[in-house]
Amino acid sequence: MTKPKRISKIVIKRLPLYNRVLQQLEENKAEVVSSAQLAEKLGRTPAQIRKDLTYFGQFGRRGVGYKVSELREKLREILGIHRRIKVAIVGAGRLGQALMAYPGFRKQGFNIVAAFDIDPQKIGRVINQVKIYPLVELERFMRRGGIDIVILATPAPVAQEIVDRLLKLGIKAILNFVPARLVVPENVIVHYVDLAIELESLCYYTK
Amino acid sequence: MTKPKRISKIVIKRLPLYNRVLQQLEENKAEVVSSAQLAEKLGRTPAQIRKDLTYFGQFGRRGVGYKVSELREKLREILGIHRRIKVAIVGAGRLGQALMAYPGFRKQGFNIVAAFDIDPQKIGRVINQVKIYPLVELERFMRRGGIDIVILATPAPVAQEIVDRLLKLGIKAILNFVPARLVVPENVIVHYVDLAIELESLCYYTK
Repeated sequence: MTKPKRISKIVIKRLPLYNRVLQQLEENKAEVVSSAQLAEKLGRTPAQIRKDLTYFGQFGRRGVGYKVSELREKLREILGIHRRIKVAIVGAGRLGQALMAYPGFRKQGFNIVAAFDIDPQKIGRVINQVKIYPLVELERFMRRGGIDIVILATPAPVAQEIVDRLLKLGIKAILNFVPARLVVPENVIVHYVDLAIELESLCYYTK
Repeated sequence: MTKPKRISKIVIKRLPLYNRVLQQLEENKAEVVSSAQLAEKLGRTPAQIRKDLTYFGQFGRRGVGYKVSELREKLREILGIHRRIKVAIVGAGRLGQALMAYPGFRKQGFNIVAAFDIDPQKIGRVINQVKIYPLVELERFMRRGGIDIVILATPAPVAQEIVDRLLKLGIKAILNFVPARLVVPENVIVHYVDLAIELESLCYYTK
C-alpha cells in the first residue's frame, strides 16, 4: 500500500464509521458492497464515499463494488488498528471504571493493559480483568513495551497536571473524556470526547 | 424563524459542534466570527459552513461575519436545546452512574431528572443529586411532565426488553450507550454512542 501524503483529519475521523459499517456487513456475511449501499448506511452521497476511499488506492471495481473483507482489512491497516493497540486508562473514578468495564473497546480489538490512579483506595482493584496501578507505575509500563494511547478520565481540576506527567513519560496520543481543554505540544494528539454532543443532536428530533 | 422543510441528518449532527465552537467564542468574549474562522475551527471549508448555516435563514453579513451570540441562540433554538430538556438515565450500573456524574450534560443545560434501575441494591442511591428509582416509576415521571430523552446504559442482553418497556411508556428519543442494535418503530429515534470510534481515529496518529 502506498501511503498517501496527506489525508484530512475529517476523513480520518470518518474511517472508523466505514469500519463499523463493514464490520456489520461481515457479520451479516455480505461479500460485496457498492458505494451506493455504503452511502445509504453512512448518510452520505456515493460520490463522497468513492472520494474518501480513493485516498487509499483503488479498491473498488466499476459495476461490482468493494469486497467487504478486503476493504475492511485495508481500512484497519490505514487506521493502524490491525495491530494490537495498547491502551491505558488514567483516572479510575466513576468514569474511568466504567471505561474499564466498557465492552466496546475489547470488541474492536483494543487491549486495555492497565488503569492508573493516585488514590490508594482504588489502587489494586481489578475491573473487567483490568487492574488499577499507582500512576508512578506508568513509567514502568512505558519501558516494558509501551502504551499507544491514554484514555484520560481524571477530575477536571487535575487534568492538565496529570497530562504534563504523561507527556514527560512520552505519551503521544490522548483520548480526553475530561471536560477541560488540554495544553500539549504539537507532536501530541488529543481527541476530545463530549458526551453532550450526541444528546444535543438528538434533541432536534424531540421537538 | 421559518422552519426549513428538510435538514439532512448529517447537518443536524454537525450543529452541536457549531454550538460548541460558538460557546467557546462567547466564553472568550468574541462578538463576531467569520465563516473562514468557523471553518478553521471545525476543519471544514468556509463554503461548507455557509451552506450549513443558510439552511436556517440568513444570519451572516457579507464582509462582517456572524454575530456569535445571535448565531448561537439560533442554533440552540433549531436544535431545541434552548428549552430545558428532561433526560432520564436507564440502567444505573457502572456506566449509568458515570453518566449520572458526568458534568458535561448539566454544563450544556440538560436536566438529568432521574436514573432508573431494576436492581434493589441500587435503588434509592443518589449520585450528583440524581436519584436512582425503580424502573416502574418511569411511568409516573412520564405522566408528571414527561421525559424528553432516555440515555440507555443497561447490560446489552436486556437492552431490547427494557427498550420495549420504554416504548410502551411513550419514549421517543434514546441515546444508546449499549453495544447492541435496538429495534424501534419509525417514529422513535435512537442515536448510538460508540466510544471505540474515537479511539480508532486516534490510532491513525500513533503509527
